[in-house]
Amino acid sequence: MPDLLTITDQEVDRFRRETPGAGKVLHFNNAGAGLMPRRVLDAVKAHLDLEAETGGYEAAATARPKLERAYSAIAGYLNCDPSEVAVMENATAAWNQAFFAVLGTMKAGETILTAEAEYASNYLSYLMARERYGIEIEVVPSDGDGELDLDALERLIDGSVRLIAVTHIPTNGGLVNPAEEIGRIARRHGIAYLLDACQSAGQRELDVRKIGCDFLSATGRKYLRGPRGTGFLYAGKAAAERFPPPVIDLHAARWDGRDHYNWAEGAARYENWENYEAGKIGLGVAVDLVLEIGAARIEKRVEALAGSLRERLEAEAGVAVHDIGRTRSGICTFTHPRLDATAVKTALGGQGINVSTSTVYSTRIDMEKRGLPDLVRASVHYYNTENEVDRFVEAVARL
Amino acid sequence: MPDLLTITDQEVDRFRRETPGAGKVLHFNNAGAGLMPRRVLDAVKAHLDLEAETGGYEAAATARPKLERAYSAIAGYLNCDPSEVAVMENATAAWNQAFFAVLGTMKAGETILTAEAEYASNYLSYLMARERYGIEIEVVPSDGDGELDLDALERLIDGSVRLIAVTHIPTNGGLVNPAEEIGRIARRHGIAYLLDACQSAGQRELDVRKIGCDFLSATGRKYLRGPRGTGFLYAGKAAAERFPPPVIDLHAARWDGRDHYNWAEGAARYENWENYEAGKIGLGVAVDLVLEIGAARIEKRVEALAGSLRERLEAEAGVAVHDIGRTRSGICTFTHPRLDATAVKTALGGQGINVSTSTVYSTRIDMEKRGLPDLVRASVHYYNTENEVDRFVEAVARL
Repeated sequence: MPDLLTITDQEVDRFRRETPGAGKVLHFNNAGAGLMPRRVLDAVKAHLDLEAETGGYEAAATARPKLERAYSAIAGYLNCDPSEVAVMENATAAWNQAFFAVLGTMKAGETILTAEAEYASNYLSYLMARERYGIEIEVVPSDGDGELDLDALERLIDGSVRLIAVTHIPTNGGLVNPAEEIGRIARRHGIAYLLDACQSAGQRELDVRKIGCDFLSATGRKYLRGPRGTGFLYAGKAAAERFPPPVIDLHAARWDGRDHYNWAEGAARYENWENYEAGKIGLGVAVDLVLEIGAARIEKRVEALAGSLRERLEAEAGVAVHDIGRTRSGICTFTHPRLDATAVKTALGGQGINVSTSTVYSTRIDMEKRGLPDLVRASVHYYNTENEVDRFVEAVARL
Repeated sequence: MPDLLTITDQEVDRFRRETPGAGKVLHFNNAGAGLMPRRVLDAVKAHLDLEAETGGYEAAATARPKLERAYSAIAGYLNCDPSEVAVMENATAAWNQAFFAVLGTMKAGETILTAEAEYASNYLSYLMARERYGIEIEVVPSDGDGELDLDALERLIDGSVRLIAVTHIPTNGGLVNPAEEIGRIARRHGIAYLLDACQSAGQRELDVRKIGCDFLSATGRKYLRGPRGTGFLYAGKAAAERFPPPVIDLHAARWDGRDHYNWAEGAARYENWENYEAGKIGLGVAVDLVLEIGAARIEKRVEALAGSLRERLEAEAGVAVHDIGRTRSGICTFTHPRLDATAVKTALGGQGINVSTSTVYSTRIDMEKRGLPDLVRASVHYYNTENEVDRFVEAVARL
């Protein structure tokens, strides 16, 4: 009997035929932005055409079911209610809405707990919160495998902790933080929990009931393979009531009287009026594709491909892989014995092979602790193939 | 000798040929979203194709000159330096960055001055600032023509006033507030000045040196005829230093040491990392078209067409026009003697005629003061024609 969790070669062939870039580039930069499937590209362009031909608002009215599908598709993926989904301009906007909402309820001396591999943008926000409002930052140490140490997290919790904010899959390689276990601890102590799922959305199963987070932020452009300029925020029903948004407009609230307003119901209060509607439609199509394929199957294939890439890079290409964590993501980072990361990226780029680099400016605490220089980041997705891994490893070996 | 400020019929014919929607709908909803010119649509779609074929970041690297053109085109329009321009997700995001930056420097008991016809989203932000931080709101009365009363503004200024925030062209008809005169008063008193140019960008000349504002926010989708999901913020060099952004990320600032960051130079500090790059390119193309035609010529034609529309609606269609102001914008609002605004909009929509409505929820203070019900909003642009005004007036008369 076939393993129902295995994506077949025939399926991969089809996914590649339906991906305009799949034949044109060897794309191992899915952690930067995934290659859009044709159906996403076509959906975005078709709506732009409709806008040009009938007007922006008129097109939105016509496309209302497609726009609403974005919410229900995301809710289907996350196992939540569509009213708990805000479609946002990007992951940064989504994360900011949640973070500053929680921050607005905090007082000087209260504490944010985060992880060593926290993403720069988030940590910068904690530093700003410390500077402006006297908020304390505690970095939970990692365990021997590089994951957030759950015992240490538990020990660091005291009456001052108001927020646990963690990056699920850090930008610089391998690690998948134990989101569900963190959630259990957060819930037990009644502490707000914000999960940055920017790199995990689209490559792993994400069930917010299991994770137990109050907020989860994500982008459309990475592993979801959606359009650039899209993202979303999950805001649990209770969290939306407890943490009013840091900004407001006539979509997020209703101006009910000269001196009075009422917040919109649910996660809509974190949105604003203006929208990249074509992108929102494309995001819905992209998430529907995840549902069609199945997040568990994507997760399995991405893990397998990335595992193969790591092994072969070390064995055959003579580079040092720097990934950590027990469970490992599709993001693989390495250093070349002679060439710096930018030189590797440029050389591969000249051969139609896309990778990116990770620097200390993206995740300083982890990079400094491990004494890492700039890393080459190769990130695979389910539509990548073993054949591409072959070609990639050969290309790196030849550098 | 021909009047160099007059857009000729031949030019209008060309603009319409280059506008996919111009033959398909009678679009008097430019205050909602203008019809995109073909060159804007094509530029956006071409970049989406490039992203799908080569990868999102790889496409951005290839398109760098086009992306940079967005900044220099906007700077050319506003008469500022490109480093004073932040390209944003939309006007709300742009306005919020400026407003909350200034708010971050204010203390309880200090005052925001605004106008009667202020846009709901902005006024909601003032109400939130009052509720959360004890900020005072003073509404400057309008003069007999409905414009912000400059003498009253001058009289209301005392040591507590920290911000003058005004909507240049309100959402509900006619009015163009005296932006330059307000700027002179703001500068004389050293008070921060934020101009919401959401409806004026693309229909009028906007020279930030003449206006003398610290910040100016705008959207791409309305009179600029750019893509939905784009906007920009002008932040003067001194203002950017004086008012640090309310949010931060690895684009807005550099994480220089474990406990230290440095803001990016200039207006980039108000941006974030993630971008709708295709939209940004389209915005640049849209602003370039304004520069090519000339904002002064657009302004003159829009004023003339809207003036004709107002006169003929009252004289021939038996409706009541409710526009105010000495100088008048391309936005015309009216009420029908028998039908409510939504009924008029729906009936016209059925004939391929696009208008929108203005309600008390968009600009409560002005609407309540004038005792206005919901209004039909017909907003014309330079690519509209007298023939369309004819057809529109006839259609309204027949309702």
